Amino acid sequence: MLPIQNFKDFINHNSLFAQSNKILLAVSGGKDSVLMVHFFKLAGFDFGIAHCNFNLRADESQRDENFVRMLANSLEVPFYVTHFKTKSYAAIHKISTQMAARDLRYNWFEEIRQSENYDFIALAQHQDDAMETILLNLTRGTGIAGLHGILPKRDKLIRPLLFLSREQINELIVKNDIDFVEDSSNLSVDYARNKIRLKVIPHLKEINPNLEQTFEQNIQRFSETELVLQNVVSELRGHLITEKQNNLYLEVAKVKTLKPQRLLMFELLRPYGFSELVVIELLQALDKQSGTSFYSNSHRITIDRKNLILSPVVTENQQLAFIHINDQTVNILQHKLSMSFTDEPYFERGSERAFVDADKLIFPLVLRTWQSGDKFIPLGMKFFKKLSDFFIDNKIPLVEKGSVPILINGNGEVIWLGGMRQDERYKVTPSTKKVAIFSLK
Amino acid sequence: MLPIQNFKDFINHNSLFAQSNKILLAVSGGKDSVLMVHFFKLAGFDFGIAHCNFNLRADESQRDENFVRMLANSLEVPFYVTHFKTKSYAAIHKISTQMAARDLRYNWFEEIRQSENYDFIALAQHQDDAMETILLNLTRGTGIAGLHGILPKRDKLIRPLLFLSREQINELIVKNDIDFVEDSSNLSVDYARNKIRLKVIPHLKEINPNLEQTFEQNIQRFSETELVLQNVVSELRGHLITEKQNNLYLEVAKVKTLKPQRLLMFELLRPYGFSELVVIELLQALDKQSGTSFYSNSHRITIDRKNLILSPVVTENQQLAFIHINDQTVNILQHKLSMSFTDEPYFERGSERAFVDADKLIFPLVLRTWQSGDKFIPLGMKFFKKLSDFFIDNKIPLVEKGSVPILINGNGEVIWLGGMRQDERYKVTPSTKKVAIFSLK
Repeated sequence: MLPIQNFKDFINHNSLFAQSNKILLAVSGGKDSVLMVHFFKLAGFDFGIAHCNFNLRADESQRDENFVRMLANSLEVPFYVTHFKTKSYAAIHKISTQMAARDLRYNWFEEIRQSENYDFIALAQHQDDAMETILLNLTRGTGIAGLHGILPKRDKLIRPLLFLSREQINELIVKNDIDFVEDSSNLSVDYARNKIRLKVIPHLKEINPNLEQTFEQNIQRFSETELVLQNVVSELRGHLITEKQNNLYLEVAKVKTLKPQRLLMFELLRPYGFSELVVIELLQALDKQSGTSFYSNSHRITIDRKNLILSPVVTENQQLAFIHINDQTVNILQHKLSMSFTDEPYFERGSERAFVDADKLIFPLVLRTWQSGDKFIPLGMKFFKKLSDFFIDNKIPLVEKGSVPILINGNGEVIWLGGMRQDERYKVTPSTKKVAIFSLK
Repeated sequence: MLPIQNFKDFINHNSLFAQSNKILLAVSGGKDSVLMVHFFKLAGFDFGIAHCNFNLRADESQRDENFVRMLANSLEVPFYVTHFKTKSYAAIHKISTQMAARDLRYNWFEEIRQSENYDFIALAQHQDDAMETILLNLTRGTGIAGLHGILPKRDKLIRPLLFLSREQINELIVKNDIDFVEDSSNLSVDYARNKIRLKVIPHLKEINPNLEQTFEQNIQRFSETELVLQNVVSELRGHLITEKQNNLYLEVAKVKTLKPQRLLMFELLRPYGFSELVVIELLQALDKQSGTSFYSNSHRITIDRKNLILSPVVTENQQLAFIHINDQTVNILQHKLSMSFTDEPYFERGSERAFVDADKLIFPLVLRTWQSGDKFIPLGMKFFKKLSDFFIDNKIPLVEKGSVPILINGNGEVIWLGGMRQDERYKVTPSTKKVAIFSLK
């Protein structure tokens, strides 16, 4: 009695995964995730179930875990469970319980995915979640990028239930007499989202009873508009930005002809970490005396007579070397970095060498020592970690921190914590066309 | 005690009008419009006050009129008033009371503006109105064009109070002890807008107390994104559409490379009246057998082997002639149309000749006789009128309808009801660079 063809159509239309893939389902035991399990079973897909026990409400958390375990057992599919000390993790990292639960959850799912050879992680988010996200973004302030809602697929995360509204899910649960638990740790419901869900959307649905479908169409139009903007900006980047002696140059005269200037400059400078406010100030200062500088966390932009000069920020005691696209080796401190390229999508595990998607590199790269505020996404993880925390976790003494060479992309992002761990964002994937191999001696 | 500098800054920043301009203020007597009057007085601008009595609630309507008249008298500025039979107008035209009031109001304001030599008409809409419009558009379905809210300036309409929120207006009214009437005919409040205003926005403001300012920034980003899209589409139009023998051609091979295809094709075909649904069907049919046609009200698009052929729709008994950019005269029925161009922004009043903004012309133009559904905006008016209604109002006998030559733009819009009245949208304005002069013999 489930609309299994619609489910399959949605998966195919959005290229979520192939029939032969193994999918890890994130299952809390609530309506949405339990319905997703039944869809996967009925469709005959190969899947396992992962459940996080956040230990936020002792009895209920245990009841949820038991329920999901029994569901997995009855369907004869693999079951993975983990227990988190969410509150103490939140306290240690000085983040909200909700953020802590998110961090812990995504990192663990990704670990299981890799160790148990699953292709994707499926989350049971639906159309109302997407709609709520858009209304939240609008309320808090956003540009076009905040209007695409929740994407059906991003990296290893898929959302195969985005073709259903909450109402449709409730109907399917009732009609098919499906058991579930009232989710005791509904992580996605924070204060603001709850307001949008319970107080705002019901009124919008009185105006338009087909609100979810209308938003689905809005989202398609906005996503396509976003793509047009991205295409324009990436073409502009090629025309406007030139590299000279470790710096990037933008001709002031050309910047002045940009239209609409604010949006395009913001999008051009976004990869270097400049905020909209700084971009507005920069544009207002264009005609004033030259020499003024503006800063992001990783870069400085200086108004010269005819050019804007964009350069990575270096602190005083720091060792730093630039790596250009034709360099083969670069020296810093007692280290020697070698770089080579191959067209084979190839990599090896290990910490001595880094295998990087070369198309993501923005030259000149920078090899430098640690500075305060550095962060990266350790390979295999989903979330940022401060380098200082990473050093502590890996028991690197404070005094040695300053001698670890760090490879930085032209946009200020960490590519490789030299000799230790590379960044998730730059790893080789099945769609990588060219691989850059870095090694340290 | 009014923030007069902010008011002036907003006017200058958005180039609403010049110090020397005469402005006609639309004043209902409610808080917003009365506050606007006080701002104009304090700023020392040259203005008059126009009030519509819609006769919707007898006593209150008279009270409102008296209040606004006294306000105008006390400030010693010109006062214009009119009385409408709103309900009977609505009944005759089969539209809602609210639509009727809008039509009547805007048309009358424009008449007064022209006859009394005002430069602009000022409406007292504020930030909350803009925010409500965006949320309404989102709820009912929209693309990026529905997210710019209410523009500070469009044609002769200006909104100088868009720098204030409703809350700020209420505060200013109380602090300055300004008299007003509770607006008995609050035209802008329909059922859906009321829901957004009273039930939705208060909850969003609990999430973000600075909601109005946040939306103002959202609107700027969205407007700029919309401009990027418009630039891309207009460049694409030049590359993609070629004219041959009265028809427009789009190469199928090029259409297939468009990315994102749906949005760009929709925007390219929008001037010819094709809906998004028809565009989606057209794109799905691209690979199927050729010969299939799709229709808008004014155009047909046919899939040929290598091309999409776009042509104006002609009914069977209709007389029709095409006018190409190099034509000087064209014959149809007993009429002879002449066309010439001048670079002087020049026009004369009268019905024998039409003076048209040449940059708005899309060749080939069409000269044809009346067909059912034809509508236009008569010069000096703000809203569409059916040609059939216009003929009735001007006492043209039914039998003569078929012999009036109508000049149609390449996008299907009426340019000139030959020898009678030209369309508001194509008139010569101060920003016109090239004038096309049409005359009929």
